[in-house]
Amino acid sequence: MEEKLKRLKEILAEFYDLYAVGMLLDWDQQVNMPPGGVEGRGYQSATIASLAHKTFTAAEVGRLLDDLLPYADSLDPDADDACLIHVARREYEKKTRVPAQFVAEFSQITANAMQTWQEAREENNFAKFQPHLERIVDLRRQYAEFFAPYKHVYDPLLDDFEPGLKTSDVQEIFSGLRLEQVALLKEIASRPQIDDSFIFLEYDEQKQWDFGVEVITRFGYDWKRGRQDRSAHPFTTNFGANDVRITTRVHKDNLASAAFSSMHEAGHAMYEQGVDPALARTVLCSGASLALHESQSRLWENLVGRSLPFWERFYPRLQQQFPVQLGRIDLWTFYKGINKVEPSLVRVESDEATYNLHIMLRLELEIALMEGTLLVKDLPESWNARMQEYLGVTPPNDAKGVLQDIHWSGGMIGYFSTYALGNLVSVQLWEKILQDIPDVEVQIRAGEFAALLGWLREKLHRHGAKYEPQVLVQRITGSKIDPAPYLRYLRRKYRAIYGL
Amino acid sequence: MEEKLKRLKEILAEFYDLYAVGMLLDWDQQVNMPPGGVEGRGYQSATIASLAHKTFTAAEVGRLLDDLLPYADSLDPDADDACLIHVARREYEKKTRVPAQFVAEFSQITANAMQTWQEAREENNFAKFQPHLERIVDLRRQYAEFFAPYKHVYDPLLDDFEPGLKTSDVQEIFSGLRLEQVALLKEIASRPQIDDSFIFLEYDEQKQWDFGVEVITRFGYDWKRGRQDRSAHPFTTNFGANDVRITTRVHKDNLASAAFSSMHEAGHAMYEQGVDPALARTVLCSGASLALHESQSRLWENLVGRSLPFWERFYPRLQQQFPVQLGRIDLWTFYKGINKVEPSLVRVESDEATYNLHIMLRLELEIALMEGTLLVKDLPESWNARMQEYLGVTPPNDAKGVLQDIHWSGGMIGYFSTYALGNLVSVQLWEKILQDIPDVEVQIRAGEFAALLGWLREKLHRHGAKYEPQVLVQRITGSKIDPAPYLRYLRRKYRAIYGL
Repeated sequence: MEEKLKRLKEILAEFYDLYAVGMLLDWDQQVNMPPGGVEGRGYQSATIASLAHKTFTAAEVGRLLDDLLPYADSLDPDADDACLIHVARREYEKKTRVPAQFVAEFSQITANAMQTWQEAREENNFAKFQPHLERIVDLRRQYAEFFAPYKHVYDPLLDDFEPGLKTSDVQEIFSGLRLEQVALLKEIASRPQIDDSFIFLEYDEQKQWDFGVEVITRFGYDWKRGRQDRSAHPFTTNFGANDVRITTRVHKDNLASAAFSSMHEAGHAMYEQGVDPALARTVLCSGASLALHESQSRLWENLVGRSLPFWERFYPRLQQQFPVQLGRIDLWTFYKGINKVEPSLVRVESDEATYNLHIMLRLELEIALMEGTLLVKDLPESWNARMQEYLGVTPPNDAKGVLQDIHWSGGMIGYFSTYALGNLVSVQLWEKILQDIPDVEVQIRAGEFAALLGWLREKLHRHGAKYEPQVLVQRITGSKIDPAPYLRYLRRKYRAIYGL
Repeated sequence: MEEKLKRLKEILAEFYDLYAVGMLLDWDQQVNMPPGGVEGRGYQSATIASLAHKTFTAAEVGRLLDDLLPYADSLDPDADDACLIHVARREYEKKTRVPAQFVAEFSQITANAMQTWQEAREENNFAKFQPHLERIVDLRRQYAEFFAPYKHVYDPLLDDFEPGLKTSDVQEIFSGLRLEQVALLKEIASRPQIDDSFIFLEYDEQKQWDFGVEVITRFGYDWKRGRQDRSAHPFTTNFGANDVRITTRVHKDNLASAAFSSMHEAGHAMYEQGVDPALARTVLCSGASLALHESQSRLWENLVGRSLPFWERFYPRLQQQFPVQLGRIDLWTFYKGINKVEPSLVRVESDEATYNLHIMLRLELEIALMEGTLLVKDLPESWNARMQEYLGVTPPNDAKGVLQDIHWSGGMIGYFSTYALGNLVSVQLWEKILQDIPDVEVQIRAGEFAALLGWLREKLHRHGAKYEPQVLVQRITGSKIDPAPYLRYLRRKYRAIYGL
C-alpha cells in the first residue's frame, strides 16, 4: 500500500505542477504578456491543459485509487492521506466521465463565445450573443448528462464549484434571504440618501497603491510568498502556498476601488498561503471551494475593511495622505460614504445590501435555463423583470443588463451562487470569531490582525481542500451554510448608518 | 508522407510549447517570482523539462524521422520542411544518445555546484569549488563519449552551442587573432589614457531607463511583441517570435550600463522577432546559434551603439536629459569615454579591444581541461599566467580571477567561444552592410534604422535555425567565420580614438 500511495502521490504531484504552470501562463497573460503573445499562449495553455488531463485520468491512477480505497477507509477520516485518496478519487471519477473530445469542443466554443460576448456587449446587441449562449446551455445540459442520474440537472454543474452542495440546498438557503433583503432595501430607500461624492475626487494613484499595500501588510499578507500587480480585473492566483499573487486596479477618480480590491484579493491570498505545507503538490493544496474562498475575501474586505473599528485606526492615515480631499470629511461621514446602499444595475459595483440580490437573480435564471423552463431568447426580458422586482431598477439596455457578466460566455453556468454563499459564510465565521476572540474589534482598532488571521489559519486555511464546504462550515461554526447571521449583520449595520 | 510530416509537426509543436513554457518559468523566476516560490518552481521546471524530453525522444519521433528522411532529401534543400526534418533528426539523435539518468544526475550536480561556486566566490576560496568542477569536467568528458567517435573530445560540447562547428575550426579562427589583439592592446597602452569619469556620476534611473527605451524603439524593437523588465543580469527570452522579452539593469552611478544593456538585448530580441512566422512552433523557430545571436547583440550594441554617427544623433538628447552631468562634455569626449580601452580583470566589464582575449583564455583552458593536459587544481595558476600574458594584469585573488564566471559551475563548458565568434561575425556582417547600404552611417546619423534592420531580417533573421552557423555566414558574407574584418575594425576605430 505504501508503494502504491507513493506512486499515486508522484503522479498527482506531476499533475499539480502542470496545473500550477497553467495558472502561471494565465497570470502572465493577464499581467505581463504583450499582445503579440496571444496565439502562442493559446497553444501553450492548451498543451499544458491536455497533458494535465492525461496525467490525472491515466488508467494507472484509476487502478491505484481502487486499490487504495480500502486503505483510505481504514485510516482516521481526518488523516491527510485518507482525504487525499477520497478527494482524488472523486476528481478522477468526474474527470474520466467527460470525454476529452467534449472538453476540447467546449473550450473552443466558449473561446468564440467570449469573443462574441465582448462584441455584443459593446454593440448592445443580445441577438448576436444569443446563438452562442444557446449552444453553451445545450453543452452544459450534455455535461450534466455525463453525471446522470442526478436529482436536479443543475446539481452536476454546481458540484464543480461547491463539492457536495445540491441545487435544493442552495434554493433553501436563498429562499428566505431574498424577501428579507428586498424588504431591507425598501426600508433603506425610504431614508435620506448618503453623500459619498468625496470618494470620486481625484486621488494620486501611487498613494492609493501604497495605502492598500500598507493595509494588507498589516492584515498579514506574506510578501515573501507573494506579490501585487495591476490588471484590468483584480484576481488572485497561486502556484502552491508559497507563491500566491494578487492583482488590483487603481482608479484616479475612485478612492474605494484600489483599497477594497487589495483587501478582497489579499483575503483570497491569505487563505492559500495558510494551507498546510504537508498538502503541497497534492489536489488538497487549495481552498475548499469557491464559496469558502469568497468567505475569506469578503471577510477581510467587508467585515474588517468596511467596519468602523478598522477606519478608526486607518482613516487618520488616509486623511494624512489626502489632506485636500479628506481633510474636512470626518470619520463617520467617511464610514457612511463607503457603506452607502444604492440599487445599481451592475453586480460588480453593488454594495453589501444589494449584492446577493444580483446573485439570486442569476441563479434563478440559470436554473430555469437548465431546466428548459426559460429559453435563451427570453432571457433579457426575464432579467429586466427580476431587476425591477428585486432592486427596483430596470436596465436601459442589455449591455447594462443581461450582457454585463463574462461568466456565461465562458461556460461557467453554476458559478454565481458561490459569491452569495461566500457572503453568508463570512458572517457565520464572524459570529464565531466574536465568541472566540471577544476583543477582536479592539484589536482591529489597534491595527492588530494576528489573532484574527491565526484563528482563520487554525480553523479553516490549514485544511486546504480536505473537506467539502458544508462539512467544513459545520465543523467550524456548528451549523451548515445559513443566511440568518448575514441578515442579522445587515440589519445591525444599516440600522446605525441609515437610522432605520 | 504528408500524414507523417503532419504528425511529426504536431509532436514538435507540443515539444515547442513545453520548451516555451520552460522559458517562461525561468523568466518569471528571474523577473517576478517571490523568494518563497523557489522550491515549487524547481519542481515545475523539472516536470516540464522531463515532459519536453519525453516528447521529443519518443520512439514514434525516431520512426517518423527515419521514414521522412528520403522525402526531405528529395526536396529543395532550402525548403522549410527539408530543413525541419534534417534539424529535428540531428536533435533527435543528440538527445537520444544521452541517457535520461545522466541528464538528471548532471542537472543535480550542477545545481549544487552553482550554489557552491557562489559561496566559493564570496569567500574567495577556489579549493571549495575545486571538487565540484572536477566532477563536472569528468561528466563533460563522459558526455563527449556518448558522441564517440569524434575528432576532438571538445567537439561534441561545442556542437551543442554552434551546430557543425569543430574545435579545430575555432582554434584556427582564433590563432591569428590573439597575437594581433595583444599587439594592438600594447600600442593603445602606450598612448595617453582617456578620461571617462563623467560616466560614473549620479544619473537618474528613470531617465536612464527612458533613454534606453527611446533608442531601442528607434532601432525597431517591437513592443507589441515584447517588453522590458529589470533583472540582476540582463537577458533575452522568448516564447515564439511574437513574445520576445528583454531585461536590463540600471545603475545610478554608471550611465553606460543600462543603455548598452538595452541595446545588446534588443539585438538578441530583434533576431527572434524576425524569424519567419512559417517556422512557428518548430525547432527552427530560434536563432541559428549562440554566435550568430551574439553577432546581433554586438552589432547593435557596438557597431551601431558605440559609433560616432549614432551619438551625433543621440548625444544631444542625452545631454538634454542630463545637463548637469554632460553639459560641458563635448561629443568627441563622450565618444572617446564610452570607447575607452583598459585591460580589466573581469570579462563582463571589458571593452571591444580586450573582450576576445578574455574569451580565448577561457577557451584554451577548457580545451586543456577536457584533453586532460590541465588539471582543475592547476587552473588558478594557469588562469593568472595567461591573464598576465594576454592582458598584462594579474588578479589579486581567485574571486576576481578564475571564479568570476558562473558558466563552468552550470556545466556549460563549450559555451565561451560563442561570445568572441559573435564579435567576429558582427563585423563580417557590417562590412557586407556597408557594401549593400552605402549610406548606412548617414541613416544612423539621422536616427533611421529601418534599412539596416530590414537587411538583417532578410539576410539572417527570417531563416531562424534552418542553417548551421558556418553555412549561414558563408551565404551572407561569402566567407566562413573570419577574424580579419574584426581586426580591421578595431585598428580603424582605435587609430582615431587613441591617435595610434
